[in-house]
Amino acid sequence: MTDTLYIPTFDDVLAARERIAPYVHRTPVLTSSYLNELTGADLFFKCENFQKAGAFKARGASNAVFSLTDEQAAKGVATHSSGNHAQSLSYAAGRRGIKAYVVMPNNAPEAKKAGVRSYGGEIFECEPSTTAREAMVAEIIAKTGADMIHPYNDHRVIAGQATCSMELQEEVPDLDAIVAPIGGGGMISGTCLAMSTVSPATKIYAAEPKNADDAYRSFKAGRIIEDDAPQTIADGLKVSLRPRTWHFVSNYLTDVLLASEAEIIDAMFITWQRMKIVIEPSSSVPLATILKNKALFAGKRVGVILTGGNVDLHKLPWIKQ
Amino acid sequence: MTDTLYIPTFDDVLAARERIAPYVHRTPVLTSSYLNELTGADLFFKCENFQKAGAFKARGASNAVFSLTDEQAAKGVATHSSGNHAQSLSYAAGRRGIKAYVVMPNNAPEAKKAGVRSYGGEIFECEPSTTAREAMVAEIIAKTGADMIHPYNDHRVIAGQATCSMELQEEVPDLDAIVAPIGGGGMISGTCLAMSTVSPATKIYAAEPKNADDAYRSFKAGRIIEDDAPQTIADGLKVSLRPRTWHFVSNYLTDVLLASEAEIIDAMFITWQRMKIVIEPSSSVPLATILKNKALFAGKRVGVILTGGNVDLHKLPWIKQ
Repeated sequence: MTDTLYIPTFDDVLAARERIAPYVHRTPVLTSSYLNELTGADLFFKCENFQKAGAFKARGASNAVFSLTDEQAAKGVATHSSGNHAQSLSYAAGRRGIKAYVVMPNNAPEAKKAGVRSYGGEIFECEPSTTAREAMVAEIIAKTGADMIHPYNDHRVIAGQATCSMELQEEVPDLDAIVAPIGGGGMISGTCLAMSTVSPATKIYAAEPKNADDAYRSFKAGRIIEDDAPQTIADGLKVSLRPRTWHFVSNYLTDVLLASEAEIIDAMFITWQRMKIVIEPSSSVPLATILKNKALFAGKRVGVILTGGNVDLHKLPWIKQ
Repeated sequence: MTDTLYIPTFDDVLAARERIAPYVHRTPVLTSSYLNELTGADLFFKCENFQKAGAFKARGASNAVFSLTDEQAAKGVATHSSGNHAQSLSYAAGRRGIKAYVVMPNNAPEAKKAGVRSYGGEIFECEPSTTAREAMVAEIIAKTGADMIHPYNDHRVIAGQATCSMELQEEVPDLDAIVAPIGGGGMISGTCLAMSTVSPATKIYAAEPKNADDAYRSFKAGRIIEDDAPQTIADGLKVSLRPRTWHFVSNYLTDVLLASEAEIIDAMFITWQRMKIVIEPSSSVPLATILKNKALFAGKRVGVILTGGNVDLHKLPWIKQ
C-alpha cells in the first residue's frame, strides 16, 4: 500500500481526536421540536457552523497541520481552495505558527480572501481553471517544500473530519441514521470511517444538490463520475469525489439523496427562522432531503451535520435586491 | 402590602424555576474568541434566542400561567402585546391547555400575528393606542374572567425571568458583570432579583437604545420618566418602566448604558457573522454598549443576555431593498 492510497483507520481517528482537541470546539448538538413535528423524525443537529473558522473543515485541517514533524512544518502547508478549507488551513497553520500558502482563483469573492488573510494565510491568485490552480500549487511546493493538504482527498483530513460524528454519537447514541452533505466527500468519508466502528447499525445518507449530482451518479454507476462546472447555491458542494473518498462512499454509504435549489433555500430559511442559527446553503441540503423523504426517516433518530455557517450576510437567497 | 405592589422574592424565583422546568429550555452559554479579542473582556452569551417561542419571555409567561389555580386557569389569560410576550403567553397557555386572549394593535405585522396564532393564541385587534388597548383588555377580562398577565409589571413574570441569570451564574460563576437590554425592565428586574442573592458582587448594567432612553433618564432622575413613542430598531425596548421594575432598577442597577441605532445594527451584524446565531436587534444592544465602553469591561468576566431571536428574515437592517 503506497502512501497515496493510504486509507485512514479508526486508530487514525482516535489519534486525530487527541491531536486536535486544543484547536477545535466540541460543538453543541441542538434539537427543534418544530422541525421534529414537521419531519416526523427526531433530529439531532451537530452544529459545525459554530466550529473554529465557521466550519467542520477546521478538524481535518488541524489534524493535517499538527501531524507534521517540526521539519516538515517549518516549510509550511499549501492548498488550493476558495472556500472553508482555505480559511481552516490558514487557521490551523496560524495556531502552529507556520505558513499557509493558499491558491485561490482571481475571481474569488473578496470576503473569502479577507477570511483567509484574517487567519494569516498567504494568498496566491491564479486564473479560475483547474489547470492553472494545480500548476500554481505545484510551483509553490517546488519552491518552498510546503506540504500539500488537499481539501478532502487526504487521509489526515478524513481522519480529522471523522471526529465530528464520533462526538455526535457520544452525545446521542444509537442513531438510526446520519445525514450529511456531500461535495468531495470528506465529511461523508469521515462519518463512514467513525460510525462503521462505533455504531455500524447507523445508516449514512449523503445529501447532494440535484444541480451537482455527481456523487449520486457515481454511487449509482459504481465508479467516480466528475461534474464539470455545476451551478448550485450550495457552493461547498461543487467538487467531485476522489479515490480516498470514493473508497468510503462505495463501501459504506446507504444512499445519496438529492434536493433542488428551491428546496435547499427553503430548508436554509426554516433553519434560520426556527432554530435561530446561521448556516450556509451546503448545510441545509440534509434537512431539505429529509423533508422530501419523510417516510424514510419517520419515527427515526436522525443525526444531521450542519457543516458550516460561512455565508455572505449581505446576500441572502430569499431576499431580492 | 397589597397584591398590586407585591415585589417577588428569591423564594419566588426558586419556585418559578421548578414550576417552569418542563416548559422552557435551559439555554446554552456561548463564547467567541473573536469577540473577546475585540472587546478585551471575557464574554459569556446566554442564548435566550434559543428559548421556547424564541425569547426569554417564555420563562415569565410560563411561570405566570402555571402559577394559576385550576379554577383561575379555566378562565384563561389575557394580555396586550405585539411582541415576544404575546407569543410566549400563547405558548404557555397552550401547554396548559387554556385560552390566551391577546390584544394587538390592528397595524401589528402579519408575522407577529401568525406567531401568536401558531401557538394557539386568540387575537383581538384594536386601534393602535394605549387607551384602546387597555379598554379592550378590560372588556375581555370583564367578559371572561381571564387573568391579566402584564408583559413585565407582574411579580410572577419577573420571578420567571430571574431564572435566566440563575442558570447563567451556575454555568459561569463569579461574573464581574451582567449586561442585559432594558425596555420595560422585566429581564433586568429578574437579573437583579436573582443576582442580588446568588452573586451580589456582580454588577448589573442595563443596555438601552439612545433613541428610547427613558430608563436611562429615569435612573438618573430617580423617578420613572416615560417615553411617548420612541423610534428604535430594537422593537422590544420601546416600552417604559413600571412600579415593580422601577423597584429593581432604582435599588440594584449599577448603571444604564446607551447605544445608537448604527451601533446596535453593527453589533447585531457582527454577532450573526462571527457567532453564527440569529438574534433580534434588542439582543444586540448589550454588545453595542460593551464595544463603546471597553475600559469599563476590559479584563472582566461579563455575562451578556441575548434576549431573543425573533426577527423578520426578509427585512434585515444591513440590506437595502
